[in-house]
Amino acid sequence: MNWRRVVFGRPIKDREEADRKVVVWQGLSVLSPDALSSVAYGTQEILIVLSTAGIGALWYSLPISGVIVLLLAFLVFNYRQIIAAYPNGGGAYVIGRDTLGPWSGVIAGTALLVDYTLTVSVSVTAGVAAVVSAFPGLLQWTVPLSVLVILFIMMVNLRGVKESAQLFVAPVYLFIAMVLIMAVYALVKAEPTAKPIHAYFAPSPLAAVSLLLILRAFSSGSSALTGIEAISNGVPIFLDPAPRRARTTLVLLGLLLGSMFFGTSVAAFRFGVVPNNQVTVLQQLAFRLFGHGIYFYLLSFVTMAILAVAANTSFAGFPQLASLMARDQWMPRMFLARGDRLVYQNGILVLGGMSILLVILFNGDTNALIPLYAVGVYVSFTIAMVSLVKKRLAEKAAPGRIATVITGVLGAMLTSIVVVISIITKFTEGAWIVVIAIPLMIWGLRAVRRHYIMVADHLRLNDLTHKPLAKKLVIVVPMASINRMTMATLTTALSMNPDELIALHISTSPERERLVTERWNKWQPDGRIKFVAIQSQYRSILRPMVRYIDHLTHLFAPGRVIVVIPELVVGKPWQNILHNHMAFALEAVLVFRREVSVTVVPYHLPDAPQEPSAPH
Amino acid sequence: MNWRRVVFGRPIKDREEADRKVVVWQGLSVLSPDALSSVAYGTQEILIVLSTAGIGALWYSLPISGVIVLLLAFLVFNYRQIIAAYPNGGGAYVIGRDTLGPWSGVIAGTALLVDYTLTVSVSVTAGVAAVVSAFPGLLQWTVPLSVLVILFIMMVNLRGVKESAQLFVAPVYLFIAMVLIMAVYALVKAEPTAKPIHAYFAPSPLAAVSLLLILRAFSSGSSALTGIEAISNGVPIFLDPAPRRARTTLVLLGLLLGSMFFGTSVAAFRFGVVPNNQVTVLQQLAFRLFGHGIYFYLLSFVTMAILAVAANTSFAGFPQLASLMARDQWMPRMFLARGDRLVYQNGILVLGGMSILLVILFNGDTNALIPLYAVGVYVSFTIAMVSLVKKRLAEKAAPGRIATVITGVLGAMLTSIVVVISIITKFTEGAWIVVIAIPLMIWGLRAVRRHYIMVADHLRLNDLTHKPLAKKLVIVVPMASINRMTMATLTTALSMNPDELIALHISTSPERERLVTERWNKWQPDGRIKFVAIQSQYRSILRPMVRYIDHLTHLFAPGRVIVVIPELVVGKPWQNILHNHMAFALEAVLVFRREVSVTVVPYHLPDAPQEPSAPH
Repeated sequence: MNWRRVVFGRPIKDREEADRKVVVWQGLSVLSPDALSSVAYGTQEILIVLSTAGIGALWYSLPISGVIVLLLAFLVFNYRQIIAAYPNGGGAYVIGRDTLGPWSGVIAGTALLVDYTLTVSVSVTAGVAAVVSAFPGLLQWTVPLSVLVILFIMMVNLRGVKESAQLFVAPVYLFIAMVLIMAVYALVKAEPTAKPIHAYFAPSPLAAVSLLLILRAFSSGSSALTGIEAISNGVPIFLDPAPRRARTTLVLLGLLLGSMFFGTSVAAFRFGVVPNNQVTVLQQLAFRLFGHGIYFYLLSFVTMAILAVAANTSFAGFPQLASLMARDQWMPRMFLARGDRLVYQNGILVLGGMSILLVILFNGDTNALIPLYAVGVYVSFTIAMVSLVKKRLAEKAAPGRIATVITGVLGAMLTSIVVVISIITKFTEGAWIVVIAIPLMIWGLRAVRRHYIMVADHLRLNDLTHKPLAKKLVIVVPMASINRMTMATLTTALSMNPDELIALHISTSPERERLVTERWNKWQPDGRIKFVAIQSQYRSILRPMVRYIDHLTHLFAPGRVIVVIPELVVGKPWQNILHNHMAFALEAVLVFRREVSVTVVPYHLPDAPQEPSAPH
Repeated sequence: MNWRRVVFGRPIKDREEADRKVVVWQGLSVLSPDALSSVAYGTQEILIVLSTAGIGALWYSLPISGVIVLLLAFLVFNYRQIIAAYPNGGGAYVIGRDTLGPWSGVIAGTALLVDYTLTVSVSVTAGVAAVVSAFPGLLQWTVPLSVLVILFIMMVNLRGVKESAQLFVAPVYLFIAMVLIMAVYALVKAEPTAKPIHAYFAPSPLAAVSLLLILRAFSSGSSALTGIEAISNGVPIFLDPAPRRARTTLVLLGLLLGSMFFGTSVAAFRFGVVPNNQVTVLQQLAFRLFGHGIYFYLLSFVTMAILAVAANTSFAGFPQLASLMARDQWMPRMFLARGDRLVYQNGILVLGGMSILLVILFNGDTNALIPLYAVGVYVSFTIAMVSLVKKRLAEKAAPGRIATVITGVLGAMLTSIVVVISIITKFTEGAWIVVIAIPLMIWGLRAVRRHYIMVADHLRLNDLTHKPLAKKLVIVVPMASINRMTMATLTTALSMNPDELIALHISTSPERERLVTERWNKWQPDGRIKFVAIQSQYRSILRPMVRYIDHLTHLFAPGRVIVVIPELVVGKPWQNILHNHMAFALEAVLVFRREVSVTVVPYHLPDAPQEPSAPH
């Protein structure tokens, strides 16, 4: 138990829950990195798409960025209301479920769960790849290093969300500060040293820059907004009043993200940054503004850090969302269990395990996963906004009703454009995986829910006049020979006062059978015990035993048959390979038989561990 | 069950045992490949060592081969007597144990078990490497191919020793025939086309060829005899009269091995074969005699096959020896269990598993293991011959007593020379591993035996006046809510007629506790059942449950506490992840508590599999 204390800290009582919650600045450092890290490539994505139509097309990055910032404003405005309406979190899943029906909720929820898993794999390997590119000797260690980073983030999150907030606060705020300083400096103070190349040209006419290209650039740039839904999912991590704190955090994130993204876009245009494969747009800006010095290197390093930390947002969002879906019986009940540290540990473990699996399967080359990224989030954005519009329309007198409907409809139109364009333009690059994975997963969730409903229906006891009534009891005690363990087992069996008690000896040779029978007759332990010896034809002890028990079950139906069997408890774990564990083997077979129960009677050797004190 | 029938065949009854035994020609094809495959490199090993002292030294290969053949004769003469004395097999282990004491037996047995494991890894990878060198495209698949070959040999042996005899008979007899034809042809018919180079020189004087070099050449060449002990270990695989059949097989093997080895050595000298890295001595001979035609290629191919088949000898020897050592309680009891096909399946599985592990650990490069090879076998030869000498000296009137003592003493001297020389000259190449592995393993076997003796001493019931007496019985039924499963479990519990029956509800919230308590009071199932509700502070159900059970144990000591708990049996295996399996979790914890037993009551959902018919 001691190493667990060191790694995860002491167990936390239910009533200490408030101490585990976070305030705004901590919540921002947990829930924002996914969104903020998008700044690191949002502008770049737009410029890459536009540059395919020539330098002149880069001008369009300004209006496109403007539309994205507008969409951001819509999203913040809408999600603030969703948080207020659903203080237990769950965002698009919950509002979709309650407004459009369970399937819409499940689609939004599944899309987000898939997205969170992809985020962990992609952002951690992207961060590690950036570090590795600086130290080429590490190249062959990309996969193990990524796995290590994921394990580390998992461990921190198993300690608690507050611990992860404190640990990752530095890179988050440093990244915010550095990007903002750069954007402000680029816009206000510095004078471009040279006129940008494309400033010599008028913007290309729309004919040259097709509408599809604009839409593609817009949908690529929209990836900058992924991650802002995390706050609406993670409301319960905040200290009360949680919804208010979550809303403040959301507005703050919106302002920071908007100014960082738009600032970067404008600065990039002003300095004529053209995307290339070697250096990112952010790095190019840093180089133009501050040269090849400490700012450049620090920014590169902090960008890597924020990418890795982005995974942390998933570790806050996934377990919360999974627990809500488990409460509605769409997900296995284990996602509802909170462990020693008050976190949904199974959500953390499953998320970590699946993203490690993805990293290993894709051999650390998660670029292939990036196209899949935005689709899931934008599906959930669309469902959230459509739901909110429908909800507000149904309410007669909600404040700000008109504004919500307008922004919601416009926002949903924009987000559904991103979904459609992403699926079409990136279908062959990998978006088809999402198109297959999400329906498959929904099909699985449906099976989970049907099972739970079937079980609940079957177990329900409506008629409380039904009472348990004792039945006839037949006990079978298998024994290999007559020894102290046999005696202890028979003692337990006799204490159960059975109607029939059978000591069953399965032998593999006639001599053995004769020997045990003779010894039994000499012993004559108790008149109530009937001795039965059976010889096995196939050397197996288990099979004739099970056959005989089946025979008893039929004979004494509807009585209960209980097999009472000892399990030797040894002093050291390795000694377990020296014994056959018939008790557990028998249990594994007999669990599939109705009306037969197995009682395992532990028999402790003198050097067996003394009852360890109950875990607290 | 169906795929098992296809792969392993139908289960075999005890009384069908005789049908599973082999006769001489089959026994030879199972037990000889290890020894015969040594011919493939025995002569070569001698020539490699001698050639370091110059071409002139190669002459010494003749007297050295002569001494090895003499040793072979001694070994055959001695092991024939060991087989007669120990018709149940076990060879050096059994005679060492009975004559020199248990530790000598264990040393011989351990040395052989280690050797058998090495044989499988080395011979299979050597065979695969030979095939791979012909098809360089396969090079990267060396390890998977070797693993596949081992798995295949395992599978055949799990079907039965007779099946493996029939399957591998062709390469064995083909190899014997081809080598003998070549030896006879080289010696009798063919005239060397050119005078061999070193025939021009007189043999180098002894001064130039140091005694150490002679001894090294002798000990390297002795590896040709490894494997002949397998027959003495595997006597029980023969049809009755097994010892007579085993002795005939041994003599046959001795004659074949002796003539193949000596014939090859003389032929190699006569044709002036000088060892080189590209082509083996056997291949060179085939080339000189028959040119670069079909004989050369067929011989190369059959040599590979015999190397892979050599592994099969280990699969016959290891399980038999392990079962004998398990009977003496040096090895885990599981090595005594014979499965459906009457083979010691655990010995086969462990041998296969360990050799696969070695192949993977050494990444298919098992050349590193070859130096370790001979040491183990020669340790067992020495112990066997010393034991036989001691045994015969103790007997006054054994026939052939004098001859046995003389050959035994001379033989033991020769084999101990091989052990000492091998360890010294190959110590840094890897023989040190054996020097460490064998003592370590013996230390482990000692711990196994001490444990079994301790258990037997502790469990022994000498005083048959001790009888089992019923004790006070306290039953605890944990329940999450009141439903049909609760009712079924309480039915079983009531059928056990306990003195106390407690329905235990652990809740994670006060509301839940109130709800269940109210429903219980409304139900009032049975006056004998006491309802206890406990609230968990840490969300864990298991811990407060175990603490309460500990409390009951102390309260009611020396009564028996039984926890009766349901286990939901679902329709499809995947649905198991949807439930928490508290029954097995509780059992795993409570097995470490004395006086507490767990009864698992299976509760079948309507779609749960109906009691599968008992396995035959």
